[in-house]
Amino acid sequence: MDDEESKAKSKENSTGRVEALSDGVFAVALTLLVLDVKVPSNQTVHELGSALWNLAPHVLIFVLSFLIVTFYWTAHHVLFASIRRSNRVLLWVNAVHLLFIVFLPFTTGLLAEFPTQRIAVIIYALNVIASSLSSIAVWRYATDRHRLIDSDVPQKTLDITTYRLMVNPVVCTIAIAVSYLNTIASIALFVVTPIWYLVTGPRASAAEPGFWPGADSE
Amino acid sequence: MDDEESKAKSKENSTGRVEALSDGVFAVALTLLVLDVKVPSNQTVHELGSALWNLAPHVLIFVLSFLIVTFYWTAHHVLFASIRRSNRVLLWVNAVHLLFIVFLPFTTGLLAEFPTQRIAVIIYALNVIASSLSSIAVWRYATDRHRLIDSDVPQKTLDITTYRLMVNPVVCTIAIAVSYLNTIASIALFVVTPIWYLVTGPRASAAEPGFWPGADSE
Amino acid sequence: MDDEESKAKSKENSTGRVEALSDGVFAVALTLLVLDVKVPSNQTVHELGSALWNLAPHVLIFVLSFLIVTFYWTAHHVLFASIRRSNRVLLWVNAVHLLFIVFLPFTTGLLAEFPTQRIAVIIYALNVIASSLSSIAVWRYATDRHRLIDSDVPQKTLDITTYRLMVNPVVCTIAIAVSYLNTIASIALFVVTPIWYLVTGPRASAAEPGFWPGADSE
Amino acid sequence: MDDEESKAKSKENSTGRVEALSDGVFAVALTLLVLDVKVPSNQTVHELGSALWNLAPHVLIFVLSFLIVTFYWTAHHVLFASIRRSNRVLLWVNAVHLLFIVFLPFTTGLLAEFPTQRIAVIIYALNVIASSLSSIAVWRYATDRHRLIDSDVPQKTLDITTYRLMVNPVVCTIAIAVSYLNTIASIALFVVTPIWYLVTGPRASAAEPGFWPGADSE
Repeated sequence: MDDEESKAKSKENSTGRVEALSDGVFAVALTLLVLDVKVPSNQTVHELGSALWNLAPHVLIFVLSFLIVTFYWTAHHVLFASIRRSNRVLLWVNAVHLLFIVFLPFTTGLLAEFPTQRIAVIIYALNVIASSLSSIAVWRYATDRHRLIDSDVPQKTLDITTYRLMVNPVVCTIAIAVSYLNTIASIALFVVTPIWYLVTGPRASAAEPGFWPGADSE
Repeated sequence: MDDEESKAKSKENSTGRVEALSDGVFAVALTLLVLDVKVPSNQTVHELGSALWNLAPHVLIFVLSFLIVTFYWTAHHVLFASIRRSNRVLLWVNAVHLLFIVFLPFTTGLLAEFPTQRIAVIIYALNVIASSLSSIAVWRYATDRHRLIDSDVPQKTLDITTYRLMVNPVVCTIAIAVSYLNTIASIALFVVTPIWYLVTGPRASAAEPGFWPGADSE
Repeated sequence: MDDEESKAKSKENSTGRVEALSDGVFAVALTLLVLDVKVPSNQTVHELGSALWNLAPHVLIFVLSFLIVTFYWTAHHVLFASIRRSNRVLLWVNAVHLLFIVFLPFTTGLLAEFPTQRIAVIIYALNVIASSLSSIAVWRYATDRHRLIDSDVPQKTLDITTYRLMVNPVVCTIAIAVSYLNTIASIALFVVTPIWYLVTGPRASAAEPGFWPGADSE
Repeated sequence: MDDEESKAKSKENSTGRVEALSDGVFAVALTLLVLDVKVPSNQTVHELGSALWNLAPHVLIFVLSFLIVTFYWTAHHVLFASIRRSNRVLLWVNAVHLLFIVFLPFTTGLLAEFPTQRIAVIIYALNVIASSLSSIAVWRYATDRHRLIDSDVPQKTLDITTYRLMVNPVVCTIAIAVSYLNTIASIALFVVTPIWYLVTGPRASAAEPGFWPGADSE
């Protein structure tokens, strides 16, 4: 394989553009979340303080969703650090993942408007679960028989990444059950995964698939 | 040609920025689609379930358009994997393509609001047809006499890509005809091309111009 | 200078991120333009045709602004193909340029809402003029005494790019004068520059600073 | 370390994607700022001039926030020109910084709607202060014991960058105090830091950490 062909090959199969599109979608989704926090209209000037106070739940839900979208972006970063090649199926599985990410500003707005309504909590949880399952699908498809990754990555390392991604759907399923008792407790559960994911991730590399903290070598 | 000149040359003629702009536009368009799915206002809390149920057509049309924009992005990815150089005309033909992509959030919103109105279906179909024809124009311009691609790509390979892109306008023209009988059937037809494009595309490379599935070597 | 240092140097001074930010801003601005074209509300279903017909001026102004923003993006592409290094002043002059680009969705909406009001035409023209003058400022700053470009580019080539960018403010100043007679004629004048810029630009390279068509070597 | 491993390593630890996501967020935030400047509705056509005049404070606040977001983007550019590697904690500290950037369109809209209300000024100032402190956190985390930067950068250079970033929170704290006397004076103070940062920054390189103007070698 001569150099020219090698360059062409690398352009055809690289993951550069799918990462660029995904980064763009994540960036817009992160920014659109805040559109749900609306500036009080001019009429309320005499009671501006209380109008702003009423926004507090919107701000809290916004911060929660910002953490969750960041969690998915970090996971995406980790997955694509190992994924060396792309193919058409990968683009589409990734697109399904982005579809659920893009839907998060809507379910975030719904949850912020109705934080005490069980149906809003369940829809939000289902959206988060679907986002997690689709990111697992990206990973399983890419790593199955080392389809799109380097052949020397041990299977155990790949599995740890999958296990880590499966924590979130489990927590969210519990959150759905809890919503029959108390919706605020469910919302608190949503914060668990992003924080756990940050704290237990390997420090040494932003993009290492999944060693546990004990294996850290900062 | 010394190295310095070669580097300069490559910056001048590369397709990096036109791909970056296009990825940005696709990413924003994908995310704006969901803005049409609006959170019910606070007053409807006692009938939140039915208010959400009424959003179902909006969600379905949103998913449909997300698939269609992803289809165009994938096609764009395939085309620009072969396009090695850019010139001013290419930038503008590509801009016309992006113009129709950017218009899709509007026609999506129109179709979601009026799924049983023939005029909404026709406008949506025309938007999709224009998007396809403009992407074909990008491809024909770039490949005519191998203007902006490698000289060793066989003409037959180039033609297959064109044929694949022509499936969509044909299906959408049929959808327009069908809208005189049943607009929902037309909308169902819109789903055909993205799914067909995904299923029949070459698996081996996300960016290979157009071998048929038989030629697959996964 | 060893390799490590050279790599570091190239990261510090390169124009990669300023181009990435600019591409992002252009992409979002292009997509936001269409937000001004609003889907008619559900009540108008019995007169949907006429409601859509009333959108025609909005669609036309949207297409006009899309062409104009594309014109500025193409010019930006041409300028930064020659600009090899960045410095802090360049970032800020470029930011002022982006400020006027970002303002275009507002003035576009204003012009679409009031196409027969002279004040809307004048504000739009002033926005376009400011965008052009700021892009000329980027170019003059970068090229003055070959500050941020290769030293072997002849001054005449640099000047041609400036002259080409000066056509637009001149045309828009005429458009302001014409608005005292007929605002629609002014709007027609806005289309002139993008089309002229496309037709007369060098075909051979998207990013060549400014040879005239006679010098074309496609 | 063979070449293959070296390439993999560089992909895993590079800062490319965190810069891409940040550029996307900054670009969308910059563009969303203008959404607060709303086109007057059609009814006001007979008094369009005065309706536009009433928008003047919104336009001024928009320009102010555009400068401030540009200031943070420039600072981000400077920091990441020195940051050579990323790790998971860096991604999350950077995400917190982006969270406050994304919040700026909201607090900008609040300040534009209520420029004479102290509470709006204070919320805006707190948002700006939080943005600055989080960018300092990014820098301190990355440079502490040269964690993610080259080992040969002198500590003094690193400190200067920190000191420069601390000017803004100090000025904004003063602005909060001043708001008890006059809110417009507070708003004027917000302009100080971006202009100071531009004027005193090193000209020679957009991305040099922080020599003072006397050390300039343009």
